Amino acid sequence: MAISVETFFLSPGFQGTLQAQIQQLIAEGILSGRFRRGEKLPSSRKLATHLGVSRITVTLAYTELLANDYLTSRGRSGYYVSDNAPVPPSFTPPKHREDSIDWTRALGRRYTGGDTPEKPQDWATYRFPFVYGQTDPSLFDHTNWRLCALQALGQKDFTALTSDYYDQDDPRLVEFIARNTLPRRGIIARPEEILITLGAQNALWIAAQILLTQRRTAAIENPCYHALRDILNQSRCHVEPVNVDPDGLNPAEIPAETDVIFTTPSHQCPTTATMPLLRRNALLERAREIDALIVEDDYEFEMSFGDSPSPALKSLDTEGRVIYVGSFSKSLFPGLRLGYLVGSESFIREARALRASVLRHPPGHIQRTAAYFLSLGHYDALIRRLRKTLKHRRGVMQDAIKEHGLTIAGADAFGGSSFWMQSNRNLNSHELAHKLQNESVLIEPGQSFFATANPPQNFYRLGYSSIPAERIPEGIARIARIQNSL
Amino acid sequence: MAISVETFFLSPGFQGTLQAQIQQLIAEGILSGRFRRGEKLPSSRKLATHLGVSRITVTLAYTELLANDYLTSRGRSGYYVSDNAPVPPSFTPPKHREDSIDWTRALGRRYTGGDTPEKPQDWATYRFPFVYGQTDPSLFDHTNWRLCALQALGQKDFTALTSDYYDQDDPRLVEFIARNTLPRRGIIARPEEILITLGAQNALWIAAQILLTQRRTAAIENPCYHALRDILNQSRCHVEPVNVDPDGLNPAEIPAETDVIFTTPSHQCPTTATMPLLRRNALLERAREIDALIVEDDYEFEMSFGDSPSPALKSLDTEGRVIYVGSFSKSLFPGLRLGYLVGSESFIREARALRASVLRHPPGHIQRTAAYFLSLGHYDALIRRLRKTLKHRRGVMQDAIKEHGLTIAGADAFGGSSFWMQSNRNLNSHELAHKLQNESVLIEPGQSFFATANPPQNFYRLGYSSIPAERIPEGIARIARIQNSL
Repeated sequence: MAISVETFFLSPGFQGTLQAQIQQLIAEGILSGRFRRGEKLPSSRKLATHLGVSRITVTLAYTELLANDYLTSRGRSGYYVSDNAPVPPSFTPPKHREDSIDWTRALGRRYTGGDTPEKPQDWATYRFPFVYGQTDPSLFDHTNWRLCALQALGQKDFTALTSDYYDQDDPRLVEFIARNTLPRRGIIARPEEILITLGAQNALWIAAQILLTQRRTAAIENPCYHALRDILNQSRCHVEPVNVDPDGLNPAEIPAETDVIFTTPSHQCPTTATMPLLRRNALLERAREIDALIVEDDYEFEMSFGDSPSPALKSLDTEGRVIYVGSFSKSLFPGLRLGYLVGSESFIREARALRASVLRHPPGHIQRTAAYFLSLGHYDALIRRLRKTLKHRRGVMQDAIKEHGLTIAGADAFGGSSFWMQSNRNLNSHELAHKLQNESVLIEPGQSFFATANPPQNFYRLGYSSIPAERIPEGIARIARIQNSL
Repeated sequence: MAISVETFFLSPGFQGTLQAQIQQLIAEGILSGRFRRGEKLPSSRKLATHLGVSRITVTLAYTELLANDYLTSRGRSGYYVSDNAPVPPSFTPPKHREDSIDWTRALGRRYTGGDTPEKPQDWATYRFPFVYGQTDPSLFDHTNWRLCALQALGQKDFTALTSDYYDQDDPRLVEFIARNTLPRRGIIARPEEILITLGAQNALWIAAQILLTQRRTAAIENPCYHALRDILNQSRCHVEPVNVDPDGLNPAEIPAETDVIFTTPSHQCPTTATMPLLRRNALLERAREIDALIVEDDYEFEMSFGDSPSPALKSLDTEGRVIYVGSFSKSLFPGLRLGYLVGSESFIREARALRASVLRHPPGHIQRTAAYFLSLGHYDALIRRLRKTLKHRRGVMQDAIKEHGLTIAGADAFGGSSFWMQSNRNLNSHELAHKLQNESVLIEPGQSFFATANPPQNFYRLGYSSIPAERIPEGIARIARIQNSL
């Protein structure tokens, strides 16, 4: 690779000759790792013109660096970073200067230190990864996704996709969601009631920013999705955790002062409980009674393989009280970052304005690729394949869990991709997870799902969307062995 | 029951192959419940004749649907909707009803009604679109972008790109920015000092959320990028507009109580003024004196074609006082939504946590595609082509502006892609823009760039990144004609 002439700047305050400064620029580039062995320097003529110095000055600098073996000359073809040039110890530039800003004071608000736990990024290197929310590349329809992406990259689509959409979405994706995705959940919505988001988390964040303030109260399920608590902390609202039971959130327990209820009726996160229809109606009734809104996170609804999925809470809503959050990240792949919000036009209008201010719009190419993948039927084919595989794995999980005497906490779910587990009371699942890592087993300790100060220590989650069925029995066996040894 | 061939219609506006359209027609028919399990499809011959397409096209569509298990084949008797095909929802969605929520009360915060003006989305249909910030598809290296996207979609990259990155970025893109992009601006940064954002606007938003509160003061340039004011309003900080002069922001005018200074030294937005080196040093000195941080929006730096660009303000910063905002959206295409923040590690850590909470991370595939496009040198080639074209257009603009006696406001810029124009005092540029629309000319009225209560009415911006050079003279002639008639 050739080193661009544009990386060179003369500094007006430099003490010394121009030649020395040029030498130093190049040496520093090499020492800092910016210029690597074998890379070609700009010609002396080009660099001289760029810097506005005489060519002989550059040539002298190069000759000096040649003598020091920083550079080599390959006759007419020019100067290259020498194969003997010093190599920086790492990528880190050596001359890192002191930062003299008092960041404790300068930071107006802090966002670190949230409830969301760090997860091992190298989970794929573990033999028994009972992780949640990652994909199994072997299940994804990579070929057709690639074809759809190519189609979306075609000349015809290009203008549409490269434009600044301002605050708009790809109309094709919105139309597909309105005409095909939502009707399967019993939801009828017009395009003005739909907003594309950067994944479900982004949708939840937008809803919280619009509906909550520091004078308002949000009721959340306990335990619940940890990132939701980080999101609510940002809005500075008062948070009321409501304990879930085997039927999910209990409407009677929701405090009267609640303004917004966050719930996961299809598969409660993390207990996997599915809320029965009677309770859904009761939840809507309770919301009406206390005049609260409901944000329904309908994640994983496509993963129901027990019975056909029950309609969304939003489909029972006759007042515009429910705001619905959907996502393609779970069913396609999480790196996609594509979800949507469905709600009354007055709400979606504010959500659109907020999104425009924060990030304008989700990238056009991704929206269009998803629109093709959905409308060509690949998505549904994928979901059927996923369901079949997950159903099989779930059976293997259940058998292995039974065989090794582990305990599933709470009720069985209709499907999904995880089990919520419970060990005996005096076992700490952080410790269990830590010990299991040495056995190449990854599990997710349950503590961080609880919103309460002293969370129970003995719950954990076992995801099975990223572990092949044949490895499940041995993985469960290892969990049982370590659990019994503690 | 056999499905009648007459329910099939080709749509003239369909983007994609005939085969894809036929597949989509059938898939949608099944998904919407119009075609039921066991129903017989028309024969390929019959459907081909009906649609006026070749029989092989229909056969290929059927074969694909067979593979996805939407259809089954019963030998000679033809194709049927498969027994495994998805079933539409059995529950009837309720009809659209009145929304009974009092949204005036329910909305905790409003985000609509900001300063960012609405822009015509159909700008490409105008013959003389002097719009700003859109791409000219004829200049973009579409072929190589497509190849890079394909490479990023390859099996090798797939796992990396589809994973949930949690709060991380594509290391390849970060490394390229650190090693190649930033050094051209004179900036040395380690990966921990860089965060990928969803475009420059997202970067500005993140910086504002972290550095500002309702007890803090932000100084902005007046006039300035309107979306920045919407962003600052969200942080509820106090905003101090500081008038710019032909050298950009004047440090002496920045109030002592300022906590954060937002500036565009390379090309002041919208006046296009470039801040001289002496003033950059004075700005840093002023910031030090009042202990303020600086957010430098270095947009369009690649578009300098007059002289070689001066180094970024950030490159002169020895204290960690400057937070740098860069973007690929302008130089690649705005629909890409890819930018970055550079700052001290303490700042980037908070920015990463905030981004994780709001949207987790920018989509993996886009990051990797950009990394390939950059590292294969296509980006530099594109920039050179852009500069050449823009330089030519700028010359044509200048000549036409001179010929027709229009007035360029303030100083000439080093490059960029727009002119900041001034008409006589009693002309309202909103009215001018409105009249020009009827002449198929789009200009951008200048009022919304001003932060002050009674903005001057007679400024407007002429972008030339989306108008071919040969149309410029006639476009300028029309502006002059209408301007003189008012």
